[in-house]
Amino acid sequence: MASKRPITARNSKSKAAPRRIAVNAAEARAGAILEIDLGAIAGNWRLLQSKVGRNVRCAGVVKANAYGLGVVPVAKALAAAGCKSFFVASLDEALALRDILKTPEIVVLNGLDAGNARDFLKARLTPVLNDLGQVETWRGLSLADPRARQPAILHLDTGMNRLGLSRPEIAVLTTEPDRLAGVTLRAIMTHLACAEEPKHEKNADQRRRFVAARRQLPSAPASIANSSGIFLGPDFHFDLVRPGAALYGLNPVPGTSNPMAQAVNLKGKILQVRDVDRGESVGYGARHRMNRGGRIATVAVGYADGWLRASSERGAGRIGGHEAPIVGRISMDLMTLDVTAIDPELTQPGAMVDLIDSKNTVDRVAEQASTIGYEILTALGRRYHRVYRGA
Amino acid sequence: MASKRPITARNSKSKAAPRRIAVNAAEARAGAILEIDLGAIAGNWRLLQSKVGRNVRCAGVVKANAYGLGVVPVAKALAAAGCKSFFVASLDEALALRDILKTPEIVVLNGLDAGNARDFLKARLTPVLNDLGQVETWRGLSLADPRARQPAILHLDTGMNRLGLSRPEIAVLTTEPDRLAGVTLRAIMTHLACAEEPKHEKNADQRRRFVAARRQLPSAPASIANSSGIFLGPDFHFDLVRPGAALYGLNPVPGTSNPMAQAVNLKGKILQVRDVDRGESVGYGARHRMNRGGRIATVAVGYADGWLRASSERGAGRIGGHEAPIVGRISMDLMTLDVTAIDPELTQPGAMVDLIDSKNTVDRVAEQASTIGYEILTALGRRYHRVYRGA
Repeated sequence: MASKRPITARNSKSKAAPRRIAVNAAEARAGAILEIDLGAIAGNWRLLQSKVGRNVRCAGVVKANAYGLGVVPVAKALAAAGCKSFFVASLDEALALRDILKTPEIVVLNGLDAGNARDFLKARLTPVLNDLGQVETWRGLSLADPRARQPAILHLDTGMNRLGLSRPEIAVLTTEPDRLAGVTLRAIMTHLACAEEPKHEKNADQRRRFVAARRQLPSAPASIANSSGIFLGPDFHFDLVRPGAALYGLNPVPGTSNPMAQAVNLKGKILQVRDVDRGESVGYGARHRMNRGGRIATVAVGYADGWLRASSERGAGRIGGHEAPIVGRISMDLMTLDVTAIDPELTQPGAMVDLIDSKNTVDRVAEQASTIGYEILTALGRRYHRVYRGA
Repeated sequence: MASKRPITARNSKSKAAPRRIAVNAAEARAGAILEIDLGAIAGNWRLLQSKVGRNVRCAGVVKANAYGLGVVPVAKALAAAGCKSFFVASLDEALALRDILKTPEIVVLNGLDAGNARDFLKARLTPVLNDLGQVETWRGLSLADPRARQPAILHLDTGMNRLGLSRPEIAVLTTEPDRLAGVTLRAIMTHLACAEEPKHEKNADQRRRFVAARRQLPSAPASIANSSGIFLGPDFHFDLVRPGAALYGLNPVPGTSNPMAQAVNLKGKILQVRDVDRGESVGYGARHRMNRGGRIATVAVGYADGWLRASSERGAGRIGGHEAPIVGRISMDLMTLDVTAIDPELTQPGAMVDLIDSKNTVDRVAEQASTIGYEILTALGRRYHRVYRGA
């Protein structure tokens, strides 16, 4: 799906020859190169849209800088693929997105408050209304401008206990529907706590609570599914689905084969290779001890680049297809790999080590750091030279 | 040490009234505010310089965007305090720093390679030479321009086994000193693996190896100490010390009272507060279960902001001085705190929760996430509204 000519983030507007020179100079300086496959992301969106069918709208969740992958190129690629509804977390994220997407709906999950609600009007944003206070603020602004009813999504809490109207608040809305006067409900939504675990009883429980609450409220499209929620089956699709993680290639059905295309590749540069004697230690705290003589390669990726320190002594990079275990503690700017078993010709300084690829997926890297792929993505570092393919 | 008028990162060039309005608008939108005390950082540098005395140069390590705190304001503050030597990790970091600091020495720890060495010349950068290949590349460029000897720092590995010349490479330099022709050795350095543990035998061992290797090489100033190395005592000061972490307030002597001033404050905004019944769960995976009825506040800081997911269910925020335990898993954009024990007046939506402050220090937050303060700092998020004080 990837095109053959890479475009860098910095130089995406320049053309032809100067672009190629800039790419090479920046790549020559870079300690690591992060490739993001926009074709794969767009393809993942199309796959999910086709999975839920024509009568269900498939949004794109691009909060947290599109899960660390770059909201500008990612949102443009999704819009070009046909996505018409974008979800972000905060007002700041929404304002930045509105700068590049003039038409599509932009929904702000964290909602509004009295101090910033007017910014939502100005930028034509759709707030998620998470409590009665937010409902009241938005109603006030909506009624102040009788020319147009203002859009909003009403968020009902069904057991996540994080954001969304509580049961008592839903009861108030039921008995006092005028609290929504002037507001166009683009959707009524809830959010699943355990969608990655299809057998968890909470999924059916949340769905049941959602359906019951919705019956008491004005008619509006319904939305419950995040990425994994889509794979809980058509009962969870309703009218609008909100995938994020699956767009970026994370497996929405852990424990089974990943239906999504992998969208991220990370390569780190070998800065130095050294022979290390048996009994010598490697890295901070002298925690890794060589139990035989060997060779250690130092690579220019560390925890300041988002390679979590929790993955010290865990996982591996690959060089020419051969696994090189990560040994010693991850440093701020560097990691050390045991390359003893690999042909020295392949491990010269300047050679690139595959750290994230189709075999060493984001999900696998996450497991080695005792976390989830979402955190690996959002932690992806600022120092990486970013190359976008498949635009 | 902090001045009373905050300056925002975005608006540091604007003046008077417009600045104040911009601050308030940005603060009103922000889900979290990160305050960085440049006065504390400059004070920490002065304290370390006075600790090592006049005859020892105290550098400033500002790699990884000044440990996440912002290299532009931090480097300017250090330069204004008298710092004349700056260390970064990569060439890209050095080029960005040279744009704002025209005169001081800028040292690149990760060294150079044949593909990018000319950039070092152009920007008057000092490479750390980590192996004989880098020595050879720099010598070649130095000899090509007979007008000036080129500066470099020679890095000897003494047991870290990460970067720096190995013992056999040092032996080659000893027998063939001409390999350094045309190069001005600004320093000969090594790096300690266990400086945070004063009783670790490796400290004395690395020092011994360093002194022995140095004797075989051309005379040059010597450097061994990072932040904690400075506190190993005068035997470790030599001619140049290279603190990073201690400048930013991390404790260089873990287990004893922190001699450094705290430089970072983080406040997160409460988006919503809810009553939660006994037996209900909070957050993803339904892992936190309420063992009594209570109140949960949702705060706009998550792991995409660098609040590591490893600290789920650990640690606390403070509201009006009262501790509110973090419960449930950290989400991408949100965390949930149990505020049952706190006066509801203090926990209204819009109230700010202290997440990092003089009691909940960076080191303590790190401990709760099973990592070190360095990782907490370098992970500090891009969505925080940053306010610099004490410039």
